[in-house]
Amino acid sequence: MIKVGIIGSTGYAGAELVRLLTAHPQAEIVWYGSRSYTGTPYASVYGNFFEIVDQKCLDDNLPELARQVDVIFTATPQGYLAGVITEEILRNAKVIDLSADFRMKDVKVYEKWYGIEHKAPQFIAEAVYGLCEINRAITTPETRLVANPGCYTTCSILTAYPLVKAGLIDPSTLIVDAKSGTSGAGRGAKLPNLFCEVNENIKAYAVATHRHTPEIEEQLGYAAGKEVVINFTPHLVPMNRGILATEYASLVPKADGNLPTDDEIRACYEEFYSKERFVRVLPAGVLPETKWVEGSNYTDINFVTDPRTGRIVMMGALDNLVKGAAGQAVQNMNLIFGLPESTGLEIVPLFP
Amino acid sequence: MIKVGIIGSTGYAGAELVRLLTAHPQAEIVWYGSRSYTGTPYASVYGNFFEIVDQKCLDDNLPELARQVDVIFTATPQGYLAGVITEEILRNAKVIDLSADFRMKDVKVYEKWYGIEHKAPQFIAEAVYGLCEINRAITTPETRLVANPGCYTTCSILTAYPLVKAGLIDPSTLIVDAKSGTSGAGRGAKLPNLFCEVNENIKAYAVATHRHTPEIEEQLGYAAGKEVVINFTPHLVPMNRGILATEYASLVPKADGNLPTDDEIRACYEEFYSKERFVRVLPAGVLPETKWVEGSNYTDINFVTDPRTGRIVMMGALDNLVKGAAGQAVQNMNLIFGLPESTGLEIVPLFP
Amino acid sequence: MIKVGIIGSTGYAGAELVRLLTAHPQAEIVWYGSRSYTGTPYASVYGNFFEIVDQKCLDDNLPELARQVDVIFTATPQGYLAGVITEEILRNAKVIDLSADFRMKDVKVYEKWYGIEHKAPQFIAEAVYGLCEINRAITTPETRLVANPGCYTTCSILTAYPLVKAGLIDPSTLIVDAKSGTSGAGRGAKLPNLFCEVNENIKAYAVATHRHTPEIEEQLGYAAGKEVVINFTPHLVPMNRGILATEYASLVPKADGNLPTDDEIRACYEEFYSKERFVRVLPAGVLPETKWVEGSNYTDINFVTDPRTGRIVMMGALDNLVKGAAGQAVQNMNLIFGLPESTGLEIVPLFP
Amino acid sequence: MIKVGIIGSTGYAGAELVRLLTAHPQAEIVWYGSRSYTGTPYASVYGNFFEIVDQKCLDDNLPELARQVDVIFTATPQGYLAGVITEEILRNAKVIDLSADFRMKDVKVYEKWYGIEHKAPQFIAEAVYGLCEINRAITTPETRLVANPGCYTTCSILTAYPLVKAGLIDPSTLIVDAKSGTSGAGRGAKLPNLFCEVNENIKAYAVATHRHTPEIEEQLGYAAGKEVVINFTPHLVPMNRGILATEYASLVPKADGNLPTDDEIRACYEEFYSKERFVRVLPAGVLPETKWVEGSNYTDINFVTDPRTGRIVMMGALDNLVKGAAGQAVQNMNLIFGLPESTGLEIVPLFP
Repeated sequence: MIKVGIIGSTGYAGAELVRLLTAHPQAEIVWYGSRSYTGTPYASVYGNFFEIVDQKCLDDNLPELARQVDVIFTATPQGYLAGVITEEILRNAKVIDLSADFRMKDVKVYEKWYGIEHKAPQFIAEAVYGLCEINRAITTPETRLVANPGCYTTCSILTAYPLVKAGLIDPSTLIVDAKSGTSGAGRGAKLPNLFCEVNENIKAYAVATHRHTPEIEEQLGYAAGKEVVINFTPHLVPMNRGILATEYASLVPKADGNLPTDDEIRACYEEFYSKERFVRVLPAGVLPETKWVEGSNYTDINFVTDPRTGRIVMMGALDNLVKGAAGQAVQNMNLIFGLPESTGLEIVPLFP
Repeated sequence: MIKVGIIGSTGYAGAELVRLLTAHPQAEIVWYGSRSYTGTPYASVYGNFFEIVDQKCLDDNLPELARQVDVIFTATPQGYLAGVITEEILRNAKVIDLSADFRMKDVKVYEKWYGIEHKAPQFIAEAVYGLCEINRAITTPETRLVANPGCYTTCSILTAYPLVKAGLIDPSTLIVDAKSGTSGAGRGAKLPNLFCEVNENIKAYAVATHRHTPEIEEQLGYAAGKEVVINFTPHLVPMNRGILATEYASLVPKADGNLPTDDEIRACYEEFYSKERFVRVLPAGVLPETKWVEGSNYTDINFVTDPRTGRIVMMGALDNLVKGAAGQAVQNMNLIFGLPESTGLEIVPLFP
Repeated sequence: MIKVGIIGSTGYAGAELVRLLTAHPQAEIVWYGSRSYTGTPYASVYGNFFEIVDQKCLDDNLPELARQVDVIFTATPQGYLAGVITEEILRNAKVIDLSADFRMKDVKVYEKWYGIEHKAPQFIAEAVYGLCEINRAITTPETRLVANPGCYTTCSILTAYPLVKAGLIDPSTLIVDAKSGTSGAGRGAKLPNLFCEVNENIKAYAVATHRHTPEIEEQLGYAAGKEVVINFTPHLVPMNRGILATEYASLVPKADGNLPTDDEIRACYEEFYSKERFVRVLPAGVLPETKWVEGSNYTDINFVTDPRTGRIVMMGALDNLVKGAAGQAVQNMNLIFGLPESTGLEIVPLFP
Repeated sequence: MIKVGIIGSTGYAGAELVRLLTAHPQAEIVWYGSRSYTGTPYASVYGNFFEIVDQKCLDDNLPELARQVDVIFTATPQGYLAGVITEEILRNAKVIDLSADFRMKDVKVYEKWYGIEHKAPQFIAEAVYGLCEINRAITTPETRLVANPGCYTTCSILTAYPLVKAGLIDPSTLIVDAKSGTSGAGRGAKLPNLFCEVNENIKAYAVATHRHTPEIEEQLGYAAGKEVVINFTPHLVPMNRGILATEYASLVPKADGNLPTDDEIRACYEEFYSKERFVRVLPAGVLPETKWVEGSNYTDINFVTDPRTGRIVMMGALDNLVKGAAGQAVQNMNLIFGLPESTGLEIVPLFP
């Protein structure tokens, strides 16, 4: 059994880790870290865990935790892990970080978009960006530190990556219009996240300034082989879970001057994801719905081309707490510990 | 592997059977019956099943189906199963019926509340009412026909049963005020179930006439050892899943003239459900919330006494599609086939 | 024009007062009091008021406010008004209090249920309980201080009052099971009111201890001519607005031993509310839905009798922010200033 | 009083016309047309109208209706009005059509996108496209036939029009990503609009094929002085009312090679809409939310520029049933009958 510790176990992403790991056949949670609820029974923080989790929350003593477990998940605010990580910790335990601290290779980009100084830039180079569907070799048993991708990021990248890589779309024209359920905003008691403020309402926020933007750009830049700059607009939707990314780009004419056909585009997607357990390229004409992936680790993808404008509309859907956070983190854990990637993640989506 | 056929697999309860059985380690669905969608790929009826279920829907030929499988689930309209069931079918396969056809022992009660003639009264006596938490001996390998309890019914009965049986409450004073998510109304395209009619709205319906009433009364009557007549009021709540039953009754004074104490009542509940995997008696002061059982087979129960009125307020919560329908049906299947009761049902509730 | 000041104008009830009074042909708001937002433009606290309200929020200086306006609405926490009210204030301006400070005539009941000392008991006697539909004479031009009824209270009382008063039901058997939208919990940034905690969820709360209980009991006690003790159970429903009260009571046999008929009960309701503009007794068989009163000052009422149990199920629906708070307060203002009761309140409910 | 008839009064847009006209001081509805509910009391089709509307539904005899009223609103399926309109009808009554029949000047475009033959092309030229905010002269007392704009259309056009007209953005780069509440889908009992299918879900639909596309293109083409072809993607959001359009376009460099500044763009919007009662250009940094316009005739607009990409993100929000349908229709009626444009439409948005 893999011994697991979670720092930040009482946020929504942390609770989702608990849900997934509780059902994981090879993992055992031994440390429910929570600065806010230290000493409180976990099940009284989240009533769904009555008679499932008996432990109390512990503090966030990372060095001690590293001595006790095989892997640590940090579902913590930006800057936390960079502030406490040490070589000794990494020697003692694998660390899978759900925050943004080690996602971007250029520390200046991190510091600019997040507005905080990075306290441990020496570990950035070794951190692997744990989106295995676009880089099969990246997470391995040797990996010590995983930067688990963001929720918007995972959805936005997976939806566009194959076409960018194949040169079928022009990345300089890429626009990502993303819609998220409210759990993405966390469990903090803030006025804009109150039921009455969110329900029967939709709005954009952080337009042109959202912190997931450079993360998307960096990864798509690798696909394009050059710098990519995009528009990314997040929206808050009155639902608990789910992200839908609607992405627009101009198709790149082929050598013969014609635009790529739907069949060619579909073949590109299907080939790229042919061996991916958790990416479903939907049949032609069937557009992704967030409800179809709820509670599961799937990302559903499809597209429509518009011959009138020469653009493609790509759509991707995932559950922000699963493939967008905790599920992907468990997937990375599986890869590190040599388990089948889908261990503990073979969850049928909940509908309705 | 248990070979399974489902008649009515494209309703919400049917789809929930598919979700649960797809993940069940000992079961294999070989027949996705659906009169409405015969010939259509199942995954194009429910997009959550893309790449999970590859089969197409078949018709509802019950005799043929019985020859091919070990167990048949019928998630069909009232009267369907009674109209087609035969001794031969029951000799060939177990039948677990999610409709009301065989729930009540008195055929006159059935015919009065459902307004239809019962076409197979000869099988009523043998049918077992599959609520194992109140009758551990009832579902066994010898069982051929299970009447799977209704959603409101399961919740209402489990919440009151121990206290009725122990004589702590007066069943003649019992009032059940129940609140249900909209999936209980099924997937039929009816105006009252449109999003805009349900959202931002709550209403009572079928007041004093709901068909689950006599089913609750019959079972509680067994606990009381006498006829029980109650008020049952269902309400439609703007959520997909979940039933909350709020139940009121007068406490029965003890021999010394005092009312039972909270400790005595709690002890009654805890003893009655001490070995039940799927009933959680919550800690004192923690009231059930439907979100805490979503997607799982749990029923959460608690109570508050009111010394001012001498009444108790009992509360129970479950997921109407799981413990209220498909989960309970799978639980009965497990019992019939000698599997641990919780096989395939060890699901952590989804929150948020 | 009636000059109006509002203390607590940035809570949900306060904002609803602003919505209603902005559209009121005879009123003008001159003081938007808000301790939390003093100095902030009102429209930046509530974006719906852009280009409608230009003023900034002011502090809560009640004595000064009383010199500037004709009427003050206090939509403030319990205890606030009792702590600051003076004879001088009441000489300068009418006060309509949306808190509970002056609703109950027995100060001991207030102090017991609210757990705070009442700082101004000398004004309790003069305060009128502003539920005009059950006491037409109560709010008059002479009234200086109105205790505006609570939201659950208004709904619960209006639904049962005529039958209690006529002796058709036994008030000692009365049980009120109430369901409320989330705006009733206010705009405070508290975890239980976050979208993800409320959405897809229903729960009871404050069972047997909710503070509106004694208020309902006092008023129904006047109708019954004797003390009334009830069970009152509030529930939180995933919607913004609306309260539905489902109320149960035993019918009282007539002199001939028979229970009152539906026609007799309906006649009782219809006669009692025949002249009431804001109470709609629905046609037989049509059950109240909260959506049908949204945004309006109506209370919709109906009932079903159950001959099997001898009980009646009464149902009432209103918008908790209108008839349950701000609308009723404006109605009281109209009565005090000699305007037609419905001035500014002739709002067609919003559906869907 | 203006005598009004409504054909299609029992759809959601029709019911919203009834809500608005019932409260209109100069209008009186004398004909509640409804083919589906002929003979049924209107209030039993929409319970919010109990004690407000006493009339029964009538049939859809347009010639007879035209003899009885001053103005007819047709809230009917595409093709209905074109199939029955005659010169005599137009001589007898004004007609304001909420369908698409007369919105596009090129009948071929209509027939291509709607897939039906236009039965009355002879009236297309005279029909005025009733979006008065972009063409103040268009609806006048001489107008006989108004093509009331679509909901997505109104929102999309108003959000981009001033910048297209001023040449600040390149219309060939325009992408409209729109999100709509479910009432836009109408009251038809269709499976995709069931509560459980829409709730906790978001999806795109009709990608690259939605019928509002050519309508947007035609009007923006007038602003641009040349043909405009765009991408328009509608999404279904789990809320009753509201449309949010998020629109992307490249800014056009000025003569000096610099992009227009935020101040210049803001000045363009503010000047264009300076006299418009129902368009609110929000303060810098405040992004539109659909809840802020609910139930009202407002359209809220704002924008953010992104210097990294040279694009602008424009956002517009309105209530699809008011400014997107019935409210705009009443606004056109007011203009035709010489009333102040806002008569009966001075509604404060409902929040929360």
